[in-house]
Amino acid sequence: MPELRKDPVVGRWVIIATERARRPSDFVTAAVPLRSSPCPFCPGNEEETPREILAGRAPGSGADAPGWTYRVVPNKFPALRIEGELEPAGEGLFDHMNGVGAHEVIIETPDHHASLATMSVDEVTDVLWAYRERLADLKKDPRFEYVLVFKNHGEAAGASLEHPHSQLIATPIIPIMVREELTGAADYYRRKERCVWCDIVRQERRAQRRLIAELGGFVALAPFAPRFPCETWIVPTRHAAAFEESGVDELHGLAEILGDFLRRMNRVLGEPAYNFMLHTAPLDEPDLSHFHWHLEIIPKVTKVAGFEWGSGFFINPVSPEAAAAALRGEVG
Amino acid sequence: MPELRKDPVVGRWVIIATERARRPSDFVTAAVPLRSSPCPFCPGNEEETPREILAGRAPGSGADAPGWTYRVVPNKFPALRIEGELEPAGEGLFDHMNGVGAHEVIIETPDHHASLATMSVDEVTDVLWAYRERLADLKKDPRFEYVLVFKNHGEAAGASLEHPHSQLIATPIIPIMVREELTGAADYYRRKERCVWCDIVRQERRAQRRLIAELGGFVALAPFAPRFPCETWIVPTRHAAAFEESGVDELHGLAEILGDFLRRMNRVLGEPAYNFMLHTAPLDEPDLSHFHWHLEIIPKVTKVAGFEWGSGFFINPVSPEAAAAALRGEVG
Repeated sequence: MPELRKDPVVGRWVIIATERARRPSDFVTAAVPLRSSPCPFCPGNEEETPREILAGRAPGSGADAPGWTYRVVPNKFPALRIEGELEPAGEGLFDHMNGVGAHEVIIETPDHHASLATMSVDEVTDVLWAYRERLADLKKDPRFEYVLVFKNHGEAAGASLEHPHSQLIATPIIPIMVREELTGAADYYRRKERCVWCDIVRQERRAQRRLIAELGGFVALAPFAPRFPCETWIVPTRHAAAFEESGVDELHGLAEILGDFLRRMNRVLGEPAYNFMLHTAPLDEPDLSHFHWHLEIIPKVTKVAGFEWGSGFFINPVSPEAAAAALRGEVG
Repeated sequence: MPELRKDPVVGRWVIIATERARRPSDFVTAAVPLRSSPCPFCPGNEEETPREILAGRAPGSGADAPGWTYRVVPNKFPALRIEGELEPAGEGLFDHMNGVGAHEVIIETPDHHASLATMSVDEVTDVLWAYRERLADLKKDPRFEYVLVFKNHGEAAGASLEHPHSQLIATPIIPIMVREELTGAADYYRRKERCVWCDIVRQERRAQRRLIAELGGFVALAPFAPRFPCETWIVPTRHAAAFEESGVDELHGLAEILGDFLRRMNRVLGEPAYNFMLHTAPLDEPDLSHFHWHLEIIPKVTKVAGFEWGSGFFINPVSPEAAAAALRGEVG
């Protein structure tokens, strides 16, 4: 069973994923290259993954067989396990609990060589709909407090398989960064009686300097204090706390702007590795008037070093104004 | 002038290092390989660096000429600038200020091919003494609130030069992670009237399972909730908040255990890239009974991916008990 452990000073939880049973010496060899062939996510290899939870399927095609447009399956090497109870316990001054949670993979397309930047808007909409369905389903499990949907694209971003996929992890506690975002947003709301993201969107649309695109009810913008070159937030212009309450029209709009942004990013940065993370409301707090869901995208073009790890302070060599101008197509 | 900018939600500051004047398209090319030759840090090339601030020198050798054992120089491409005032200002709902600070490089040895793992205890003690001297000196500048001493060793850890060196950055605000550590430690102290690191050292010495080494008044231990495989803390057994108040005996002890640990790490992980960060008290709060300085070392053998960036939660495939056993030489 993996284990959740809490740092006694800063309160940060980590997952000790003991089930993967790695010895320290396993890390002596250089980084494992991206696995591309044989590909466990390609059609025909469905038996290489655990049984599918959800799929977009042509009429008449059976589960765990070819004929799908997207597939959601449990991660074969999960960071958290779906079975069991938390059983929180102490060890002297330390706190730990069982690593209970869900870890799923969303295989975005049967085409090994496609990407969210090349897929059609309808195909991307289906992937986003799958996120929505899984969030809505995992919400019913009272053991879970949060679901993080994320994507690791490319080796530098932590992907171990090449075939287009995203992931989700459901956790039994609200992660520290989500908690910090909620606290900061609640403080702002108390002072101003307005949502901070609504205010940011309003200010950035007026100022234009950090605006990258506006499409289908969403803006893509370079945040004022970005950690990484070309870090980008995609924010719905209409206030909403919970991603899973989006309708198909909203997901279609998100698919449009996401594809548009990824193509801009690829043009400016030359198809970089990247991560994206869906920031949505915790499962048990859906009606947050101070929280506004959004998608954060971070291209991996710089290295995180000692200063960042020791301070939480990031050094970004590109201003968000220059990044936004390049991503708008003005320079770059 | 670089600029400090604050995220309006989570309160995290970033440094927009505009002086480096990078355009987004500069990141299209693959990562710059480590520069080894010609080496600006090797003896004879002293004119390649800004003028030295401090050096260990043989009698009769002049500044910025060969004959040194270590050298401290301003970073040629500083993230923060030493000249100027902060001039905090707003832009709508955003806060920013001038990027005033200090960014220095400690060249640890004239030998390009040496390392802290191969240098003598006396040579490493001199490097630590240089940290102490620079901290004590920068403390006199009322614009600075914190000095972070850190090391990036190897390309994967963010180093851009091969020659052994560490760095320090003095910042005009207390970094968010230092603040979180201080807050957590103060909470613990209020509840227990004891320092949390003193309690950790006491518990770990008794339990032994996560203890790696004990030498010269220090312990090296695998923290209970480590983010990375073989993450290690070196903690003085005697309570002290401010590193720069250490005497030469203490720095000699630290040099001993640091070299010992790095050789253990190299044996287990095959000379990995690594970072270390000195966690010491803020400059204006030297008498913190709840804070205990320590050195954190993180080997870079895993990639940080979307889950970590989106949650602040880390997945670590190696338990600290297995890491400590391997580093003690029992297995691995």
